[in-house]
Amino acid sequence: MVALARTSAGRLLAVLGAFDHQHSALCLTDISRRAGLTLTTAHRLVGALTAWGALERDASGLYHIGLRLWEVAALAPRALALRQVALPYLEDLYEATHENVQLAVEDGGEVVYVEWLSGRSAVGVRIRVGGRWPLHATGVGLVLLAHSSAGSQEAYCAGPLAAFTPYTVTDPALLRRVLADVRRTGTAVSDRQVTDDAVSVAAPVRGPDGTVTAAVSVVVPHADGRVPALVPAVRLAGRGISRALGWRPRGNGAGTPSHR
Amino acid sequence: MVALARTSAGRLLAVLGAFDHQHSALCLTDISRRAGLTLTTAHRLVGALTAWGALERDASGLYHIGLRLWEVAALAPRALALRQVALPYLEDLYEATHENVQLAVEDGGEVVYVEWLSGRSAVGVRIRVGGRWPLHATGVGLVLLAHSSAGSQEAYCAGPLAAFTPYTVTDPALLRRVLADVRRTGTAVSDRQVTDDAVSVAAPVRGPDGTVTAAVSVVVPHADGRVPALVPAVRLAGRGISRALGWRPRGNGAGTPSHR
Repeated sequence: MVALARTSAGRLLAVLGAFDHQHSALCLTDISRRAGLTLTTAHRLVGALTAWGALERDASGLYHIGLRLWEVAALAPRALALRQVALPYLEDLYEATHENVQLAVEDGGEVVYVEWLSGRSAVGVRIRVGGRWPLHATGVGLVLLAHSSAGSQEAYCAGPLAAFTPYTVTDPALLRRVLADVRRTGTAVSDRQVTDDAVSVAAPVRGPDGTVTAAVSVVVPHADGRVPALVPAVRLAGRGISRALGWRPRGNGAGTPSHR
Repeated sequence: MVALARTSAGRLLAVLGAFDHQHSALCLTDISRRAGLTLTTAHRLVGALTAWGALERDASGLYHIGLRLWEVAALAPRALALRQVALPYLEDLYEATHENVQLAVEDGGEVVYVEWLSGRSAVGVRIRVGGRWPLHATGVGLVLLAHSSAGSQEAYCAGPLAAFTPYTVTDPALLRRVLADVRRTGTAVSDRQVTDDAVSVAAPVRGPDGTVTAAVSVVVPHADGRVPALVPAVRLAGRGISRALGWRPRGNGAGTPSHR
């Protein structure tokens, strides 16, 4: 973080980067410390950001991310634009299953959840919209990883694979077989990989050129036994979002369903 | 925009500010022009923003707002945090009415929509999440304006009131009466004020201290005649979100419903 702070642009971005889910309201001192800046510099940059609306100050003097930054960020095609297209399908999947429904993209070797609709079951809700998780430990992550380049997959399997539960797959050879299964079956089932009471069923979302640009999933209690019943629904949601994004299955002829 | 660009922080923010709903994908030349910067400066700042993830470049060379900026912006309490709390109530209101449902806050004398669930009717969808609209021409805006300070209301009524349809209220005296009605009845009905085929029914959302921090509304076709049936539902949604934010009605005694 300190290296980033050496250009003026880097210093301003370091102030924004000081905020995260565990630190969403910060005093000036914490901002300067987390951003690796002197108090004077932090004060000047916080002032500029507050004047513009990227930060807001509350009654107790703490700074939060401001509404205007959110408005600009709402233009990010890989987050809100994708979400706007996908939301009706996510809502339908939620209505059909009454379980947690998620939409995620890949960024820098991690899963980023761009939407999370909460169901009524009691599975662990550690994940939140905007949160990042490793690819190997989540259903959406397995889908995204399985459809990334061969080089990306190799590099990921070769790297350290963190364990979150006693069941998390941390063996590279096993992970490679799991990824091959995901491509073959069209679905990922991630069983108790990130919390020890939940199973995630995930399917790909494709863009107009056919590449996998996102993944959709449902998370249910492990003890539920509903996984087989959920697979077709999640795949259908993935295809629906894909069509809404402009994807069309490769046809064998007019009216013939394609095997994709 | 040019005045803002005279400090280094201002210049970086001007690059972000160059993006809006009509200009969500920009080439470097357009960024430099819209931000009021030289091509060299724009190139340097765009590079810094892209390296950090606030901007992303697509296959055709255009820059978009990047996923990482959205993740940071997701921390904004007045946008995503509010939305996360409100979403179940908005979804229930959508399920109950099958019409467009919105959640909005006030910022700088304008309405900012932080959520918009689309219904199946054909009313004009000019409004989008993250978009800004004037307070007097929308149901949510009337609710927010009616509960702002007396000084803010007077300043707003004294300023120019833009017309969007032949029905838009542009007479300050009439607007003051409308605002008084909103406070008295607890609901705003905005009839064909922003598009000439839609009516909006809006109700307040209160924070723990009782102040109106947001507004929720339903937009239906004007010709529908459903407005009276929607008023209780929208008010209920507003109260539900308020309770979820920690608001409690002022009680007259244990178990006695308050008249609020």
